[in-house]
Amino acid sequence: MRMRNKPWAMEFLNENSNIVDTDGSYSGRIGDFFPESRPLHIEVGTGMGTFITELAARNPHINYVGIELDKNVMIRVVEKILEAELDNVRLLLLDAREIDTYFHKDEVERIYLNFSDPWPKNRHEKRRLTHETFLSKYRSILAEEGLVQFKTDNRGLFEYSLGSLNNFGMVFHEVKLDLHADEPEDNIRTEYEDKFSAKGNKIYRLKASF
Amino acid sequence: MRMRNKPWAMEFLNENSNIVDTDGSYSGRIGDFFPESRPLHIEVGTGMGTFITELAARNPHINYVGIELDKNVMIRVVEKILEAELDNVRLLLLDAREIDTYFHKDEVERIYLNFSDPWPKNRHEKRRLTHETFLSKYRSILAEEGLVQFKTDNRGLFEYSLGSLNNFGMVFHEVKLDLHADEPEDNIRTEYEDKFSAKGNKIYRLKASF
Repeated sequence: MRMRNKPWAMEFLNENSNIVDTDGSYSGRIGDFFPESRPLHIEVGTGMGTFITELAARNPHINYVGIELDKNVMIRVVEKILEAELDNVRLLLLDAREIDTYFHKDEVERIYLNFSDPWPKNRHEKRRLTHETFLSKYRSILAEEGLVQFKTDNRGLFEYSLGSLNNFGMVFHEVKLDLHADEPEDNIRTEYEDKFSAKGNKIYRLKASF
Repeated sequence: MRMRNKPWAMEFLNENSNIVDTDGSYSGRIGDFFPESRPLHIEVGTGMGTFITELAARNPHINYVGIELDKNVMIRVVEKILEAELDNVRLLLLDAREIDTYFHKDEVERIYLNFSDPWPKNRHEKRRLTHETFLSKYRSILAEEGLVQFKTDNRGLFEYSLGSLNNFGMVFHEVKLDLHADEPEDNIRTEYEDKFSAKGNKIYRLKASF
């Protein structure tokens, strides 16, 4: 999502450099960003951060990294982390296309994609976070037993992604075509998930590995 | 679907042995069942036959074989074939588990599965027509470029099937999660499709190859 531009956003993020890496300081050494060494899970596109902060609160034995390109949105995530005093979530102001140079091979154990931009036009296919270009990057940083977990309410994007992940040779572990019909306990609803679901949209979820 | 038992069903089918093979007469030599040699497409589970007879009428250059285990249902398909005077549809009163012995290797170019019984209980998983046991049989009779086309309104069965076909290593060519939202011209609605769709159920479709 886009938020109104906040001229002070960058200053705010830099003031919180113990939580946000705005300039690649921890590239190649993400472990140094956390007080303790723990398994690493990442979310590509945090939005306002409800998902990753709730997940981090539930799982203090996991280190979470949220990646987001929009500094105005990221302010909200920082505020949530500060408020909940979470020591196991860190944020990267980073273009998702750069994740394969930021992380080491096999360093990440899980990748979350939630309500990613659908980029519905064919000519924007390459921008979809489930395009093979991105899948190739995920594969290069994901540990052998690692999972990609993808959630969306966008039917077109989910259809595309089922095909894209399948064609890339990924193995499906779970496919849900109406997540809320029999909602798993582990589901964390994002801001948008509640809104879209209330409108009657189905929520889709896929878990897959390489 | 089940229909009321008709004591005269078997007699009727045998009277139409130019259209129906009730006893495996054409096993291993399906070509002899048709007036002309043409590419071979099959439907596993014809139900009342709207789909296969309409498809055959649209594509006179293809030979269609409908497979159905229920002789009472099959009567309706025979009637439709007689009425439309189709020379490119033949029927097999056959258990789907036997298709790999009935057809030759690589003989079939397309397999249609429409609104198959969902067998929702876990203990009946092996009876689902998209279980790996069946996929293995399809692979053994399907030509190299051959497609499996699967359509259902049953969400649980479609979720299962996406996983099953993917885990079997099949390649997805098309995934539709709401077929009627932007209905392709090639879609032929079955009796049930109209009924289920009118109830607000989504129709799902998958095309995949080995």
